[in-house]
Amino acid sequence: MALPPVYLSLDAAMSPKITVELLRQLRQAMRNTKYIAEPIQAYIVPSGDAHQSEYIAPCDCRREFICGFNGSAGTAIVTEKHAAMWTDGRYFLQASQQMDNNWTLMKMGLKETLSQEDWLISVLPENSTVGVDPWIIAADQWKNMSKALASAGHSLVAVQDNLIDAIWMDRPTRPSTQLLTLGLGFTGLTWQDKMTALRSKMAERKISWFVATALDEIAWLFNLRGSDIEYNPVFFAYAIVGMNTIRLFMDIKRLAVPTVREHLQLDTPSKVELSIQTAPYESVFTELQAVCASLGPKEKVWISDKASCALTQVIPKAHRSPIPYTPLCLAKAVKNATEIQGMKMAHIKDAVALCELFAWLEKEIPKGTVTEISAADKAEELRSQQKDFVGLSFPSISSVGPNGAIIHYRPLPETNRTLSLNEIYLLDSGAQYIDGTTDVTRTMHFGSPSAYEKETFTYVLKGHIAVSAAIFPNGTKGHLLDSFARQALWESGLDYLHGTGHGVGCFLNVHEGPCGISYKTFADEPLEAGMIVSDEPGYYEDGLFGIRIENVVLVVPTKPKYNYRNKGSLTFEPLTLVPIQAKMVNTDLLTQKERDWVNEYHRQCRETIGAELERQGRKEAMDWLIRETQPIA
Amino acid sequence: MALPPVYLSLDAAMSPKITVELLRQLRQAMRNTKYIAEPIQAYIVPSGDAHQSEYIAPCDCRREFICGFNGSAGTAIVTEKHAAMWTDGRYFLQASQQMDNNWTLMKMGLKETLSQEDWLISVLPENSTVGVDPWIIAADQWKNMSKALASAGHSLVAVQDNLIDAIWMDRPTRPSTQLLTLGLGFTGLTWQDKMTALRSKMAERKISWFVATALDEIAWLFNLRGSDIEYNPVFFAYAIVGMNTIRLFMDIKRLAVPTVREHLQLDTPSKVELSIQTAPYESVFTELQAVCASLGPKEKVWISDKASCALTQVIPKAHRSPIPYTPLCLAKAVKNATEIQGMKMAHIKDAVALCELFAWLEKEIPKGTVTEISAADKAEELRSQQKDFVGLSFPSISSVGPNGAIIHYRPLPETNRTLSLNEIYLLDSGAQYIDGTTDVTRTMHFGSPSAYEKETFTYVLKGHIAVSAAIFPNGTKGHLLDSFARQALWESGLDYLHGTGHGVGCFLNVHEGPCGISYKTFADEPLEAGMIVSDEPGYYEDGLFGIRIENVVLVVPTKPKYNYRNKGSLTFEPLTLVPIQAKMVNTDLLTQKERDWVNEYHRQCRETIGAELERQGRKEAMDWLIRETQPIA
Repeated sequence: MALPPVYLSLDAAMSPKITVELLRQLRQAMRNTKYIAEPIQAYIVPSGDAHQSEYIAPCDCRREFICGFNGSAGTAIVTEKHAAMWTDGRYFLQASQQMDNNWTLMKMGLKETLSQEDWLISVLPENSTVGVDPWIIAADQWKNMSKALASAGHSLVAVQDNLIDAIWMDRPTRPSTQLLTLGLGFTGLTWQDKMTALRSKMAERKISWFVATALDEIAWLFNLRGSDIEYNPVFFAYAIVGMNTIRLFMDIKRLAVPTVREHLQLDTPSKVELSIQTAPYESVFTELQAVCASLGPKEKVWISDKASCALTQVIPKAHRSPIPYTPLCLAKAVKNATEIQGMKMAHIKDAVALCELFAWLEKEIPKGTVTEISAADKAEELRSQQKDFVGLSFPSISSVGPNGAIIHYRPLPETNRTLSLNEIYLLDSGAQYIDGTTDVTRTMHFGSPSAYEKETFTYVLKGHIAVSAAIFPNGTKGHLLDSFARQALWESGLDYLHGTGHGVGCFLNVHEGPCGISYKTFADEPLEAGMIVSDEPGYYEDGLFGIRIENVVLVVPTKPKYNYRNKGSLTFEPLTLVPIQAKMVNTDLLTQKERDWVNEYHRQCRETIGAELERQGRKEAMDWLIRETQPIA
Repeated sequence: MALPPVYLSLDAAMSPKITVELLRQLRQAMRNTKYIAEPIQAYIVPSGDAHQSEYIAPCDCRREFICGFNGSAGTAIVTEKHAAMWTDGRYFLQASQQMDNNWTLMKMGLKETLSQEDWLISVLPENSTVGVDPWIIAADQWKNMSKALASAGHSLVAVQDNLIDAIWMDRPTRPSTQLLTLGLGFTGLTWQDKMTALRSKMAERKISWFVATALDEIAWLFNLRGSDIEYNPVFFAYAIVGMNTIRLFMDIKRLAVPTVREHLQLDTPSKVELSIQTAPYESVFTELQAVCASLGPKEKVWISDKASCALTQVIPKAHRSPIPYTPLCLAKAVKNATEIQGMKMAHIKDAVALCELFAWLEKEIPKGTVTEISAADKAEELRSQQKDFVGLSFPSISSVGPNGAIIHYRPLPETNRTLSLNEIYLLDSGAQYIDGTTDVTRTMHFGSPSAYEKETFTYVLKGHIAVSAAIFPNGTKGHLLDSFARQALWESGLDYLHGTGHGVGCFLNVHEGPCGISYKTFADEPLEAGMIVSDEPGYYEDGLFGIRIENVVLVVPTKPKYNYRNKGSLTFEPLTLVPIQAKMVNTDLLTQKERDWVNEYHRQCRETIGAELERQGRKEAMDWLIRETQPIA
């Protein structure tokens, strides 16, 4: 699944949300002493939740509620006279269609667009107060905003009651889904072992406490999964870990289930330092205050620098040690042998479903009855037949012809195109299985692709191979590989406006840090054996078609001819094993090495997926696989 | 000339400087109320000058004076009981040999080495005061150090009188060399035009004043050159530019010369806003204070964020606008047509000298009389015969066999090896001509290179070609090209531990910002047509040999098959035209495209340098050139 930034927008007909009354109510709340001691002159509505999640639950869609725009990125700011919403190029069209004329769309990335700070400074009366919910603004964002406003004589204040919630009458409740406990066969490590490893990292750096705020980190640490947020098998919680203490904050009802109680050893802790004290989700604030109140003079507390301003500021500055990547984030990224085995199994099952889908599409498309939506539904249906299927890992990007050029496209009834023999079909989709998470993109033509379509597909393939086959020293950061994916496109004057790869969780979020392959992420951590990332270069021709070839790949050690300074070398092993359509390739543009790569990849697909298709008795898909994995010349 | 970081050290025998008495005197000064109101418990001696120059004048070598270590990077800190000096891996051996046992060598880059801040905190008594000369510490460094010390209860204070100068009896005076005025034929733009362009950038960003502190920026702005610092044709000065005012601060004696007075129109300014007020170098502080005292409430002053703490803090925070790259730095980096023409001429002359040198070496080496030092001297002699030669652009790296593996090697009598038919010779050298600056590395074998030497040379050559021939979109930052230079080495498990390229000035510093090609510089500015950088991958086998192939290349527009989003594409054109030794190449490892590149490059060398050799009647070099530019198969 392609990562931002992209500069295309959803070409869909939508009617704007009428916000006159809502804005009146919000402005009233901004003056209401029930919520704030003094009236505020502006209120910021960020798009995130209290955990800075990429996907959010319906109860946290506050920015969408106030302005109507439902894209994944955007910040709304309301003053007494103005209402403005900042989003990036992906969403310009969508936002302009979803917002009514009470709102000004602030197009980020354009030179003439003021930043939120500069805009506030330009519209606010002297000595204004700007409010924000400190739970949904990250500590670093708070700091920058606060500084900029102060330099112009204004001040940023934390408004403890969320003013959107105050006017949102039918706001959904926070989800509290059933928890799934994962045993050693899926995780490879007990939560107790993970806790011990975390504490040894803390001891190494002389850290007394660690505050876990990211939902996927908490799920990984406790070997638990939930379904509070669509596509992300996580649950709302916080954790505070000391050298002898574990505090877990979540809806207490969820802990009444015997399997969960037993998994967490709530009733019979094996050791005192592994005894978990549970407390309600909301009590994390006061509990962290209590922890901080008893800190010794030199004690330090770790918290992610992306954690909420509210929690971060509970920790006195002298004790606070903010980190860009927590030890959980780093440990989670390097998959152990059990997780790798699980990811491999998940990818085999996923490939079975996709081989079936493509065989089915070949048969059905000529009838003219398959649409973007029905193809995506069929893919989900076939995946759901596989063992331990849980759900999709993100909304399927199922796109025909010009819709394929919209990088984060999601088919809607009003945009739904029919698959045909004349247009390219791009399917970027993935699933959550209990043993792993998948994410794969294939671009196919079911008729005769044009020479230009084949040419650009081949450049993308060359880029995909250049990354997948790259050999690089241990300790190399992923962003140093990004240009390999672009070299063939650049040589012909082409490019794509998104990163090349993102980290992938193991039955966790499909996008995870701290590694990736992007010209943008310079704060990425070095690649290590056991990390799993996507490799997904693309090419997008506006109004015509989109091409993307995406595999999930595992970082593995390799032994080239020499071993400079005993540093060791790494390369990638594809976990995704779905044929790449040979019909789309102009083989004249491939080097012998690249042809060999394609043939070896297809040999692996045939061998591994063929065996599973046979086991499952899926004959049509098997025939399709055999045909699609013929060696190319 | 290769850029840091490197992790090798100079393998030379040196005797340490005896510092007992000096340290006693310095500690006395640290308590002397003649210099400070209260005694300080530590004194920091950075290695730079007041302009954060890479190369410094003898009067600014304060860190060398106090500890004996004369490498280009290092910071000394003296407390009442300790003396410690931080430097990086290039200099561990050299520093340990040059410093006596009063000093502790702090090896930067090793895990166990404390940072300066942490070390100070670990050794200082409570509530200590640490002093530093605010003129030779950059504003951002001051900020970080001050913050870290404050967090531990200490404070950083500015000591206006430099305490090293106070005890340095025979300190050289600040150089004040004769100024050279450059006409339009060399600069392409008058200083008046440059001033107008600067002011329009200021107006664009609503900036009232700009403080120029970097010596090369001031030299470029005024179309003047000096020789105050070895290898760098600059002079000590500051400038403050307002919309109607120009203040130039330098040794007033230098301005008595009629050609300089006329060049700067000191006596007959054409317009009032182009009239230059001159003042002594030292008066910049009080003059900037005066400027700041008269600022309107919204007026802003631009200053480099790498400027000295002393000058930066003169500007009240509300008016200060620190920038990573000044408009002069950016304008200087994009060479105009006249500068490009000059750089081309300089490179032709430089190639003539090197062809002569290599022809001479071939004849002389078998006699066993040529050493690293004599070869470097010969290169300088041959260069000095060329028109408008001014001097070298950096100390020649002339290295035989194992010395070649020391990336920043400089031959000394005690390390001087004799060139032979058995060892690789690496020469990285360059010159200043009035029309341009050169920097070229060639690696040669005058006997029969081993298969391994040829293999690694060929990987380096493949990397050099991959960068030189790269096509990339307009707006690409140079660091995205760095991995292209390493791909062939990485595939065989090899690498080199320095960046691939640096910006090159035009009759200015051989290292200049804001562009470059390095895995390290993520703050580099996008490459633009007219920028000039080096392309210099290498490979270093400790104790055996070093290989580096370096050309200076010009960024030029190119037109590939397509033009994605009308962004346009760029590539490089080599300015350096010196044959690459074919004998060192294993042609089997080259692709046809790479062989074509080599042959086309050699065709250009033969055509362009051949014509000049013929014009200068240098027959032996011509024969050598013809032989060395035969096409490879």
